[in-house]
Amino acid sequence: MRERHFQPAPEWVVQQWFNTDKPLTLAALRGKVVVLEAFQMLCPGCVSHGLPQAQRVHQTFSSSEVVVVGLHTVFEHHEAMTPTALRAFLHEYRIPFPVGVDMPDGRNGVPQTMRAYDMRGTPTLILIDARGNLRQQHFGSISDLTLGAQIAELVLEAREDATGASATSAGSGADRSADDCASGACAIRMPNE
Amino acid sequence: MRERHFQPAPEWVVQQWFNTDKPLTLAALRGKVVVLEAFQMLCPGCVSHGLPQAQRVHQTFSSSEVVVVGLHTVFEHHEAMTPTALRAFLHEYRIPFPVGVDMPDGRNGVPQTMRAYDMRGTPTLILIDARGNLRQQHFGSISDLTLGAQIAELVLEAREDATGASATSAGSGADRSADDCASGACAIRMPNE
Amino acid sequence: MRERHFQPAPEWVVQQWFNTDKPLTLAALRGKVVVLEAFQMLCPGCVSHGLPQAQRVHQTFSSSEVVVVGLHTVFEHHEAMTPTALRAFLHEYRIPFPVGVDMPDGRNGVPQTMRAYDMRGTPTLILIDARGNLRQQHFGSISDLTLGAQIAELVLEAREDATGASATSAGSGADRSADDCASGACAIRMPNE
Amino acid sequence: MRERHFQPAPEWVVQQWFNTDKPLTLAALRGKVVVLEAFQMLCPGCVSHGLPQAQRVHQTFSSSEVVVVGLHTVFEHHEAMTPTALRAFLHEYRIPFPVGVDMPDGRNGVPQTMRAYDMRGTPTLILIDARGNLRQQHFGSISDLTLGAQIAELVLEAREDATGASATSAGSGADRSADDCASGACAIRMPNE
Repeated sequence: MRERHFQPAPEWVVQQWFNTDKPLTLAALRGKVVVLEAFQMLCPGCVSHGLPQAQRVHQTFSSSEVVVVGLHTVFEHHEAMTPTALRAFLHEYRIPFPVGVDMPDGRNGVPQTMRAYDMRGTPTLILIDARGNLRQQHFGSISDLTLGAQIAELVLEAREDATGASATSAGSGADRSADDCASGACAIRMPNE
Repeated sequence: MRERHFQPAPEWVVQQWFNTDKPLTLAALRGKVVVLEAFQMLCPGCVSHGLPQAQRVHQTFSSSEVVVVGLHTVFEHHEAMTPTALRAFLHEYRIPFPVGVDMPDGRNGVPQTMRAYDMRGTPTLILIDARGNLRQQHFGSISDLTLGAQIAELVLEAREDATGASATSAGSGADRSADDCASGACAIRMPNE
Repeated sequence: MRERHFQPAPEWVVQQWFNTDKPLTLAALRGKVVVLEAFQMLCPGCVSHGLPQAQRVHQTFSSSEVVVVGLHTVFEHHEAMTPTALRAFLHEYRIPFPVGVDMPDGRNGVPQTMRAYDMRGTPTLILIDARGNLRQQHFGSISDLTLGAQIAELVLEAREDATGASATSAGSGADRSADDCASGACAIRMPNE
Repeated sequence: MRERHFQPAPEWVVQQWFNTDKPLTLAALRGKVVVLEAFQMLCPGCVSHGLPQAQRVHQTFSSSEVVVVGLHTVFEHHEAMTPTALRAFLHEYRIPFPVGVDMPDGRNGVPQTMRAYDMRGTPTLILIDARGNLRQQHFGSISDLTLGAQIAELVLEAREDATGASATSAGSGADRSADDCASGACAIRMPNE
């Protein structure tokens, strides 16, 4: 039904992960909406706005539908924002979601994932749909009202995809999917709060 | 496709309107999502949270899809919160959207629309879908992230309804609907900002 | 010791008092620093900034040294901001300090005290020293840091006056004053918190 | 006149200074009120509350009377909060006042100045009067209203000291001092804003 064509989001290239037992790949998150928060630990706008907003998203939406991932995209002050310093930062700021360290370019420049997404700076908030397409990329701040609407759209698309997929399979399965969809689509339950 | 059954939202009963040339009826807003902000001008939570949030909704979403309406539901201090006082309040607080005065019950009690919706107090934020069904009713505060998601869900349903309707009609009409849908469904354009 | 000459603050002219059993006169408050918050109940800056700041002053400083008084200086929307409406407002916003209604001029213009002080609008915050002199008059907003400093200066002057006065009287009285002063002058105890 | 006895503030022991051409000693600041903000760059309360408040003090009071000094008292995550990382932090957060790095104890424990003041953690805000006495020490947050009052008290004491000193000297000097005092003591001019 959706005939629009979106670009696939580039796979991230990560040097080291925090807050997760095993490395995360974008490919493995297919089927979920991904909210990628690119930040630097010494970027004031990231600390005052971007990361708190990412935490609100993490608390508001169900982790079965929306996954929040941090990406430490160090493009300046490389000597200050080391993985060691990041570890302390994440601990002190109680960041609950997985955070990857964007792979350095080897010359203290823009790291590899940041370059692949052509990000203009930090904070950058990126929305990737359940099919793995890049759907939104915001540099700077975005209101919670707009962000909530954009995430919801991708969640609802994902539910529709899931329903459609089972609809092509047989009988009762489709019915159950329809039921799931019907119940799952209730706005009351979409956000956790 | 949606087989859920929702209750129709009661039509509001309004004594007097502000910020609109002619009275608004809920029936006439069919086809749009309605965000109804029930408030009292001397309710601190309405002034600090509810009305500013309603203004953000008014600014964020397109008025062709989402309509914000205020409802002055005076259930206490009737002698202080008269329509004359409300007029001054709306002017000083620069409220831009239409506001109706909920019809008094004639005994200085709970006004008629407030009673019909069984509201528990102010502020109460109510979401009514494009088919006129009551979908959400929040007493107190709700986060912008959750509200944005809930409004988006109703907007997307309304778009789907519009598309579905034309899909049942013939040929080129369906194609045009599909195009509208394709373009209209882009999250970038859904909120105005 | 202080040889500066300040203008005496005009006595306020009040139509009606709230939150006090008996009328307050400026004259009767001699010996205390008076923080006068002139406001209108439908003035957004008064509700969001001026009155909350006045409440913080009320909570922070000892009422034996600093008295906070509200003055409802209605110069517009007279029909909306009646004493009846003010009573409801003070109740809903939990204003704890005495509030006087500035005496109307009889022609729906600028009320009498507001005119006597030549105020430019609301909110206006006025500081009157313990001798009854007008010391500060701020239209609009002033930071808590600056306001705290200005109030402290007047409090310390008042303590000095009290000490100086008893120093001219005899013996043990002077000693007790000195003791009071010595203990009272400790910055730890000046604000209540 | 003031017969109270205060403890002299311990001289700070600093490994390295930022935002100043030459090392600062507490002794050399005699005659001015010193506001010492002890912080750690990865302490959330320091970043959200303590340092912004110190910046407001820096902007509000005249640097001829009140000096704001930061002290980086690293007692945890030593490997993350190095002087190199601090340099980047001060640059990104636009900290305008001098900041010293508290001298490590050599065992990754509590640094030397922090120990000398017996600080309980960060942020800690310390007020030192113009005579070099320790007058206030706040761990955690303190309101701007209270802080403004406490700083003002120390400023006024310093002015009194200055006046008193010249009053003991002869004739015209005393007169000039009195004039200075008279003009300097005006609350309007004490804070810069």
